[in-house]
Amino acid sequence: MSQDALVFYSRVDNAQAWQAALAAELPDLDVRIDPAVGDPADIRYALAWAPPAGFFARFPNLELVINLGAGVDALMKRDDLVPVRFARLNDPGMEAMMASYVVFAVTRYARDIHIFERAKRRGEWEYVHPRPLFEIKVGVLGLGELGAAAAKALANMGFSVTGWSRSPKDIPGVTARTGREGLERLLGESEIVVCLVPLTPQTHHLLGERELALMPPGAKLVNVSRGALVDEAALVEALRSGQLAEATLDVFETEPLPEGHPLWALDNVLITPHVASITVPALAARDVAESIRRVRRGLAPLHEVDPRRGY
Amino acid sequence: MSQDALVFYSRVDNAQAWQAALAAELPDLDVRIDPAVGDPADIRYALAWAPPAGFFARFPNLELVINLGAGVDALMKRDDLVPVRFARLNDPGMEAMMASYVVFAVTRYARDIHIFERAKRRGEWEYVHPRPLFEIKVGVLGLGELGAAAAKALANMGFSVTGWSRSPKDIPGVTARTGREGLERLLGESEIVVCLVPLTPQTHHLLGERELALMPPGAKLVNVSRGALVDEAALVEALRSGQLAEATLDVFETEPLPEGHPLWALDNVLITPHVASITVPALAARDVAESIRRVRRGLAPLHEVDPRRGY
Repeated sequence: MSQDALVFYSRVDNAQAWQAALAAELPDLDVRIDPAVGDPADIRYALAWAPPAGFFARFPNLELVINLGAGVDALMKRDDLVPVRFARLNDPGMEAMMASYVVFAVTRYARDIHIFERAKRRGEWEYVHPRPLFEIKVGVLGLGELGAAAAKALANMGFSVTGWSRSPKDIPGVTARTGREGLERLLGESEIVVCLVPLTPQTHHLLGERELALMPPGAKLVNVSRGALVDEAALVEALRSGQLAEATLDVFETEPLPEGHPLWALDNVLITPHVASITVPALAARDVAESIRRVRRGLAPLHEVDPRRGY
Repeated sequence: MSQDALVFYSRVDNAQAWQAALAAELPDLDVRIDPAVGDPADIRYALAWAPPAGFFARFPNLELVINLGAGVDALMKRDDLVPVRFARLNDPGMEAMMASYVVFAVTRYARDIHIFERAKRRGEWEYVHPRPLFEIKVGVLGLGELGAAAAKALANMGFSVTGWSRSPKDIPGVTARTGREGLERLLGESEIVVCLVPLTPQTHHLLGERELALMPPGAKLVNVSRGALVDEAALVEALRSGQLAEATLDVFETEPLPEGHPLWALDNVLITPHVASITVPALAARDVAESIRRVRRGLAPLHEVDPRRGY
C-alpha cells in the first residue's frame, strides 16, 4: 500500500519479530525494514531506535516517529528532527519487566541478601533477623508509566512507598511528593531510593553530591533510568565513604561501562548491562498499531512526546 | 485470671513483643513467660517454639498448643505430646515475608542476575537479552498458605506458574497439579522450582537424585521450606554436574549449615540463614487471639494441625 508505509530502523531490536507482531495487529500496514525502504515518499511512519543523522529528513511525507523504547532523551537531543508528531513506546510488557527488576533490586536489600552473599563467600552463617516490609521506606523518583508501575508493585508487596514526580500523582498506597522540597524530603526519609526520572536538561545530575548527602547514612540507590541522572563521580565517592551502603546500577553515563571504571571495583555495587526493561514486540505492537490508526484519523498517537518538554 | 492463662516459650522470639501484641488483642489474657509460669494448673494455652522435653505434660489443664511458626514438623515428631488441640501460626505478615523472598529468588534467575553478578566480579559488561516473564515457567511445590501466597505473587508479576499440592487447589493464574504424576510433570516442565511443601515422613527427601534428574538440564531450585525435603548429597551432585545450574537455599538438613559443608564452596549456590519468613507478633497476635476465643467457646482453633497427618 504505497504512501502509507512504516520504516523500521534499529541495530539492537529484532526486525523480523517486529514485522510479524505488526502484521498480526495491522495486516494492511506496509512495513519496510531499513535499508530496503523503496520510494521514500511512501513512508508516513517511522519506528526507530538511534537512526543515523539525517534519517528523518529522507522521508518527505513522514507524519509520526515512534521511538523504539521508553526513554526519548537521545531522540529529543538530536539536531535533525523534523516537524512531525513524536511518541514513545510503552507497553504492558515493558512495565512488567521494569517492575520485576525494581522489585528484585529493592527486595534484595530489604531482605539483607547483600549481607548473606558476602557471608556465603566467606563460608559463614551470619544471621540477621528479618524486618517486615512495611518498616522499610522506599522512595521512587519519577512516576511516569514505568515509575508508577514500579511504585505500585512495591506498595503491593508491602513496602512503605513514597513517590516523587514533577506533577502531583495519585497512586493508591503511594505517598506523593513534588517540587524541590518534596525531593529533599523523600531523600531524607528513604532507606532505598529508586531512580526512574526521564533524562532531560533539567534532570541531568539530579542526584549530585548534595542530594546523595541528604539520604540517611547507609542508604541504598537503584538507578534504572539513565546514568546521567546521577553524578557518577559523586556516586563513587558516596559508595566509598559509606554514605551510600549499596547501589544497583543498570545505566551509566557511558555504556557499556568502560573497563577499569571505578564502579567495577566496588564490592557494594551490583552492575547490570542496561537490561531492566525491554520492549516485547508481541505486546508493544498493539500500541504502535493503535497510534498509527489514530494518526490516520488525524488524532494524536498514544504516549505522545512534546519536544519542548523533552519527554 | 487464674485457670485461663497462656504460657509462652521460645529462645529465638521476642517474648516482650509477643506479650504486648497479645495484650493489644486480648486484654483479659494472662500471659506468663516461661520460666515464670506460676501455678501450672492455670495454664490452658501454650504458644511455644521448641520447648524442652516434658514441657507440655507439666500443665494438667492444657487445651491448646500453638506452634510459634508455620512449620510443625519438629513439634509433630516429638514423643512427649499430650492429647490436646494443636495449631500452627499463620499470619499475613508471614505470607508477605515468604512471598517477598520467593519473588526475589525467582526474579534473580529470571532476570539473569546470577550471570551479571559473576560478570561484575570479573569487571566485564556481559549483555544477555532479557526474556519476558511469561516465557519463564516456575513450578511451586506445596500450595498451603505460604505456598499459595508465593504462587499468587509470582503469577501476579507475570510468570507462568504451575503449582503442585496433595489435594487439588484452585488459585487464579496458577496451573494445578497433584499426585506423583503431577509432580513429575511439574519437574519436567519447570525452569525454576520452588519448594514450599511441609516436611512430614511422606515428604522427607521428596526431591532426590531421580527427581532432580527429571528437571530440565540447567534448571534452578529454590528451597524455603525444610532442608530434609531435598536429598542434600544428591543436590550437591546435581549442582556440581550442571544438571542444576543454580540453587537458592534458605534451609538445610543441619542448621546452621556446618562449616566446610560442600554447599559453601559451590559458586552457583546462594545461601541464606533460614530467614525467608518470620512471624511478626503485631500481625500474628490477631490469629492467636482468635484461636483462643474459639477454644474458649469449644470450637477448633485457626490453622489446626492434625497430628496423624503431621501438618
